[in-house]
Amino acid sequence: MTKPRPKISKATVTRLAFYLRELQQMQRSGLANIQSKAIAERLGLNDSQVRRDISCLGTVGQRGVGYRVQELIESIQRVLGTDRTWNVILVGVGNLGRALSGYRGFEQQGFHLVGAFDSDSKKIGTSIGSLEIQRLDDLSSFCQSHQIDLAILAVPADAAQGVVREIENAGIPGILNFAPIAVQATSKRTIIQEVDLAIELQRLAFGVVPKAQ
Amino acid sequence: MTKPRPKISKATVTRLAFYLRELQQMQRSGLANIQSKAIAERLGLNDSQVRRDISCLGTVGQRGVGYRVQELIESIQRVLGTDRTWNVILVGVGNLGRALSGYRGFEQQGFHLVGAFDSDSKKIGTSIGSLEIQRLDDLSSFCQSHQIDLAILAVPADAAQGVVREIENAGIPGILNFAPIAVQATSKRTIIQEVDLAIELQRLAFGVVPKAQ
Repeated sequence: MTKPRPKISKATVTRLAFYLRELQQMQRSGLANIQSKAIAERLGLNDSQVRRDISCLGTVGQRGVGYRVQELIESIQRVLGTDRTWNVILVGVGNLGRALSGYRGFEQQGFHLVGAFDSDSKKIGTSIGSLEIQRLDDLSSFCQSHQIDLAILAVPADAAQGVVREIENAGIPGILNFAPIAVQATSKRTIIQEVDLAIELQRLAFGVVPKAQ
Repeated sequence: MTKPRPKISKATVTRLAFYLRELQQMQRSGLANIQSKAIAERLGLNDSQVRRDISCLGTVGQRGVGYRVQELIESIQRVLGTDRTWNVILVGVGNLGRALSGYRGFEQQGFHLVGAFDSDSKKIGTSIGSLEIQRLDDLSSFCQSHQIDLAILAVPADAAQGVVREIENAGIPGILNFAPIAVQATSKRTIIQEVDLAIELQRLAFGVVPKAQ
């Protein structure tokens, strides 16, 4: 299976996603045009980096006026593939799962949460937001009647690998893994993106001079 | 202020943090020695990449035996700066803040949550885990009597920039920002690491072939 979108490095994809968020914020506050320099300043990047990234999009700015905010938003969304709705399910409704389900940023970027699953029988049938929590065993049949693009995995570490297999068997092509353990896909077509919140803290700590103790 | 640790790219820091997590997992399951190839396989990287990263640490493996797991763990922790305890506070005790406070991975990697703050008067005095939620206005005095290294910011977007200023004024050198907006430091000495959970989904979506709709 080939990638549907242009070859862009992971680092560029990440920066584009940050530009998109800032541009949407700017648009909400009424801005129609923007210079690359203003984006760079808001994100603590340098101007030439921002211009290089934007040039990948094929969007052209106008000297002295800058880029049209709406046009930039649309071209970034097209490149990232978020110019459409992605149907997402949540697997694992603990504290983290609950927080993720209420995370407004997902919906804003086109990620639509359409199902929530857990293996704890006490949770089944209770609701999370507007969704009713379903049995993990029902994942596969749910995916036969709904087109699910992505799964957010928020189960404990020791359950994660087994659940990945169930998600793959249900035919879901992408997994965002919040379980604090690396999981492996069985199929080469499954894309897994690891998120580890402790690793984010470690990345921060690396740059910080700690206080004397 | 100069960086206290060696010059290593952000990408390498991230990979080292992932190696550390896997090595700790291996150690708990009783493994004493490990080949770079096994780490590479568990993380879906290639062997030479892993060996290159480890060589930055000054740790030497033995042909046929590999690396000593304990030694590798210690050298990664030394480079990342997590061979000590980091005192962390949480600012913003909504759903996400609650989930983050219960995230066991933090404590495991040496991040010790010592305070929780919110501006909502209804929450003040209630508890989150073993901590009592304090008034945001008391942040500064709390930091005078405690040595705080890092703040986790989990407030709404519109409050984030103002709270960053308060965190900086309290003398905290590092901020992990979960608010869905880019914030700016006033001081050049403050390090801010942005985490955006929607951006993680966008990075995943970029690699996934969506289902037809």
